[in-house]
Amino acid sequence: MSLTKDYTLNIEKINTSRIGQVDFKNLVFGTTFTDHMFECDYKNGAWQNPTIRPYGPLSIYPSSKVLHYGQAVFEGMKAYKDEKGSIFLFRPLENLKRINISSKRLAIPEFPEELFFEALETLLKMDKAWAQTGVGNSLYIRPFVIANENCVSASPSNEYKFMIIISPVSAYYSGELKVVIAEQYSRSADGGVGFAKAAGNYAAQFYPTNLAKEKGFQQVIWTDSNSHKYLEEAGTMNVFFRINDTLITAPTSDRILDGVTRKSVIALAERDGIKVDVRKLTVTELVEAAKDGSLKEIFGSGTAAVISFVNGFSYKNTLYNLPKIENSYAKRFKKELMDIQYNLAADPFEWRHKVV
Amino acid sequence: MSLTKDYTLNIEKINTSRIGQVDFKNLVFGTTFTDHMFECDYKNGAWQNPTIRPYGPLSIYPSSKVLHYGQAVFEGMKAYKDEKGSIFLFRPLENLKRINISSKRLAIPEFPEELFFEALETLLKMDKAWAQTGVGNSLYIRPFVIANENCVSASPSNEYKFMIIISPVSAYYSGELKVVIAEQYSRSADGGVGFAKAAGNYAAQFYPTNLAKEKGFQQVIWTDSNSHKYLEEAGTMNVFFRINDTLITAPTSDRILDGVTRKSVIALAERDGIKVDVRKLTVTELVEAAKDGSLKEIFGSGTAAVISFVNGFSYKNTLYNLPKIENSYAKRFKKELMDIQYNLAADPFEWRHKVV
Repeated sequence: MSLTKDYTLNIEKINTSRIGQVDFKNLVFGTTFTDHMFECDYKNGAWQNPTIRPYGPLSIYPSSKVLHYGQAVFEGMKAYKDEKGSIFLFRPLENLKRINISSKRLAIPEFPEELFFEALETLLKMDKAWAQTGVGNSLYIRPFVIANENCVSASPSNEYKFMIIISPVSAYYSGELKVVIAEQYSRSADGGVGFAKAAGNYAAQFYPTNLAKEKGFQQVIWTDSNSHKYLEEAGTMNVFFRINDTLITAPTSDRILDGVTRKSVIALAERDGIKVDVRKLTVTELVEAAKDGSLKEIFGSGTAAVISFVNGFSYKNTLYNLPKIENSYAKRFKKELMDIQYNLAADPFEWRHKVV
Repeated sequence: MSLTKDYTLNIEKINTSRIGQVDFKNLVFGTTFTDHMFECDYKNGAWQNPTIRPYGPLSIYPSSKVLHYGQAVFEGMKAYKDEKGSIFLFRPLENLKRINISSKRLAIPEFPEELFFEALETLLKMDKAWAQTGVGNSLYIRPFVIANENCVSASPSNEYKFMIIISPVSAYYSGELKVVIAEQYSRSADGGVGFAKAAGNYAAQFYPTNLAKEKGFQQVIWTDSNSHKYLEEAGTMNVFFRINDTLITAPTSDRILDGVTRKSVIALAERDGIKVDVRKLTVTELVEAAKDGSLKEIFGSGTAAVISFVNGFSYKNTLYNLPKIENSYAKRFKKELMDIQYNLAADPFEWRHKVV
């Protein structure tokens, strides 16, 4: 947190916007980026030279530590435009804090929250034309930090780059998901980095997720690496189980991400008088509940997808399909969350932050 | 393995070598690189355009997947120059195979071994002047693969870059190490990626290693994440324990790297009539052996450091110092390995590969 309040945020504007070249009706998630990006380097023990400049390639040496040791963390946030053209963030302070929690575990110097927020708001004001109105459309914001010292020894970097890039997106997932309960592979260890949004946590899931995809499933619900008995999270989302009328989700731990959408769902459920049990749920309980019909819903929560509907799961090569139900909690929370995010409803928790 | 035999290795030579600017007496590990590097891109389902070109920066978009999801693997190898100016590799086929084992677990397409080897040998021939004679001097070779698709969705990349960069180095560690036995933090999980040289495995160790360093220790010996009862590896090296005259090292598993130096030490020990027990050793056994004097040596094995001497370990805030001994196994294996590597002794196992 070496940068003092008297920093100057440098701004280099584009000459001509690329927005006219974008087909907003056919966006592929995370592949189109707005005109500007934010960049700030850490060198000689201090964050320095914070700059907003045109989005474009970086010059990175092949010996840069991020390419070898995965010393990198990120965040996922969204900005929403209402019908009047105002831009809102959803609980942004949670992300400002969490990136520094992730950084600490990865031995990355913390980034000043105040500068992060100023850079983010400035960037959003500059590129607000890229936000499309309409529920489901948003700007996906990707703040991230990478180790950038040019040295291939396996030790923490002395240089870093903090960046924010912004991608206009429509909905992340379409349709309902079928998931596999992990029996062999694991996402994280006790005493590991599972709670952090650490780069390496994601690559580690790709191969087992591919195996699930080959069998016709879209995601893996991870279990604890010790016993594979307890349901944890889905890697890009936290997971909720509704048994009868009670909502159950795993407690956060050093293996499970403290999701912003997860905690928002819990708050909404409690407000709405829905019982929430934050406790370890065993795979055995889940299977029993599926068999006796008390398992009503499974859904994921995350920034990119908001709420993902799960309509079946596989465990030990048996597929358990979930029934169609009236009064879905998942649908209810998705609507309640998006109504707040898009300024379509009151905001009793003060989660919405107006940028412009 | 999409590249067929009829590829052409493109070569772009430097105009003027940078070698005259290098102070070979004061090399900092992994910070100086030779004149050329090898680069090959994976696009549209095939490895293509293999090229040796001048070492220099890459143009990488901030949305490149490696910067967000740690989808990257690497290898560590060395080339040694003998007094006659010949250049040798040590068991290079092990590294060619292992990078593809790592790639598979990280959902990265395998790289053709034949092309890897041709590129490596060509590069070494071109930059052989950078190898200094003298035992301890070597060229540290870093082959690596990075995901390089410009997309921030958390799924395997469709584009990759395979590279080889080479750094002239002297010895990696100096002096003897004191280590901490892990009691809380973990390196890897059952069912995880610990056996692979995956980028994220390394960053995950930096913070706990920093905590150890603050207390005056240089490395952490990791234990299993389930119980912290069993000794595993040290993150940048496998670990051997000598109790009385028996050498003990953990069996490889999905948490432990199958080290080339580790298997070479085992082969040398067996040849030399030293009993090797490849088995799980508990921390309790280690502490008991330290207390009753039967623990004679601890050492690490790895490409960068060859053999690292450990002269003490800490467990539950108690420091156990190891005695000085005559007839050190560690010293013996270090000499035997380096004599083979530097063409100073016979090569009964055919580990040495002459490049030029």
